[in-house]
Amino acid sequence: MESGYKAMEAVDQKRISLNTATVRKQWNLRECIDGCVRHGIGGIAPWRDKLHECGVDEAARMISDNGLKVSGLCRGGMFPAADAAGRQAALDDNRRVVDEAVVLGAQCVVLVVGGLPEGSKDIAGARSQVRDGIATLLEYARSLDMPLAIEPLHPMYAADRACVNTLRHANDLCDELGAGLGIAVDVYHVWWDPDLATEIRRAGQERLLAFHVCDWLVPTTDLLLDRGMMGDGVIDIPGIRSWVETEGFNGLVEVEIFSASNWWKRDADEVLSTMIERCRTVV
Amino acid sequence: MESGYKAMEAVDQKRISLNTATVRKQWNLRECIDGCVRHGIGGIAPWRDKLHECGVDEAARMISDNGLKVSGLCRGGMFPAADAAGRQAALDDNRRVVDEAVVLGAQCVVLVVGGLPEGSKDIAGARSQVRDGIATLLEYARSLDMPLAIEPLHPMYAADRACVNTLRHANDLCDELGAGLGIAVDVYHVWWDPDLATEIRRAGQERLLAFHVCDWLVPTTDLLLDRGMMGDGVIDIPGIRSWVETEGFNGLVEVEIFSASNWWKRDADEVLSTMIERCRTVV
Repeated sequence: MESGYKAMEAVDQKRISLNTATVRKQWNLRECIDGCVRHGIGGIAPWRDKLHECGVDEAARMISDNGLKVSGLCRGGMFPAADAAGRQAALDDNRRVVDEAVVLGAQCVVLVVGGLPEGSKDIAGARSQVRDGIATLLEYARSLDMPLAIEPLHPMYAADRACVNTLRHANDLCDELGAGLGIAVDVYHVWWDPDLATEIRRAGQERLLAFHVCDWLVPTTDLLLDRGMMGDGVIDIPGIRSWVETEGFNGLVEVEIFSASNWWKRDADEVLSTMIERCRTVV
Repeated sequence: MESGYKAMEAVDQKRISLNTATVRKQWNLRECIDGCVRHGIGGIAPWRDKLHECGVDEAARMISDNGLKVSGLCRGGMFPAADAAGRQAALDDNRRVVDEAVVLGAQCVVLVVGGLPEGSKDIAGARSQVRDGIATLLEYARSLDMPLAIEPLHPMYAADRACVNTLRHANDLCDELGAGLGIAVDVYHVWWDPDLATEIRRAGQERLLAFHVCDWLVPTTDLLLDRGMMGDGVIDIPGIRSWVETEGFNGLVEVEIFSASNWWKRDADEVLSTMIERCRTVV
């Protein structure tokens, strides 16, 4: 355990952001917004599926009318493709994500960078495509003042979701590609990394654009859809929060839980109440 | 893709070692040995469950009578525990593993180092226990000339199986703890690592004690028991083999596939034939 984190302020509901994936099966965006307001939750992070159901302009209006912050838009990325046409299509779509984030007033676009193209075993090549894709998108994002946040994903997603799997790799990309690019730290993806404290320090306040929480369950029964509620797993969440806050991060704490067999089956108001209680006590 | 590996020699059956986990559901140790002989496979890597079924001395006799090499004994490790008594019990058992490996004439003891003790969220503490445990065991292993091979496990096993999850961490431990300690490189656990080539180079011939192969399937449906046959997944196995062989590794290629829904359900002779064909063509 790291010392010092007991002095941190508890995370109250105004500092929580609800990632819509946490109640994906229960609520549409309007219901998510109403739920946040009902529970006093200060922010929201919509996935594009929820956004497109109601339209981006209407979503922006509803979010703004209710005084919610948007901690991030999920998600851009998925850069690698088997051919140039596929890469171009990904870039075109990513520009639309940036546009949508601007309309929403989002604090960043979260990038899940993509894995191996169909049929490929060339992970170094995929990583090179990711670098090139981010570089191109970054020019556009900078012109609209929209930060891009690379989210390093757990190595178990290297093949099919994201071939940037450590904070170190994300920091290397930020070093190489420069201003406007930062990092989303999700404890689920990075808790195991022996270099985590070092690389959070290296990232510093300027790059730390988002902080996502959930928990790693033992056992984990599904690679994608078995995330735990904070406190139910083995991640030292306060320890990691102390590291990002020591760097000056004071943004929203975004709760993103994919849980097919548990939280997606519960009443969504119960999920939000539990989130709030856990953020206060174990985050 | 790395250049150069096309110049490598194909892996013929004499250079294969059958890890008994690959046919765990089908065969006992005697049947594994007979199968190796029937297929011309040169080596075997027994798990202790199979060993204890027939007794270590009898196992050693059968293996030796049939001229098989033992690429490693699976497994020692599991060092962290919630209390001193637990750590002592782990060490006592690890000494027995070393003794058994000596009787078998194994080339190394494979260490799956263990994860978080029950109820703990302190991964740094678990890593410290692992270092201390290996240090103590190493004195005993050195006295019997039995090399210990740390197997870095995929980060998805950090909580419950092994909190050494990168080759870099394993190399750091080798630096710290010295002679008699090396590394088992299993492509399944390390293929995603952007530092893999660098850290294989850093390990060098002296530390590269074992090389395990299987494949990463897309999708992977179970965290533990859904490994693929070489060629059925996304790992650039020849690329990784070229790196270890460039360092001078010329040992057995050990095939270790946990596959509850596929290979464990097939006729074991078919599994061995497939292994041999794949080692010749895609490893």
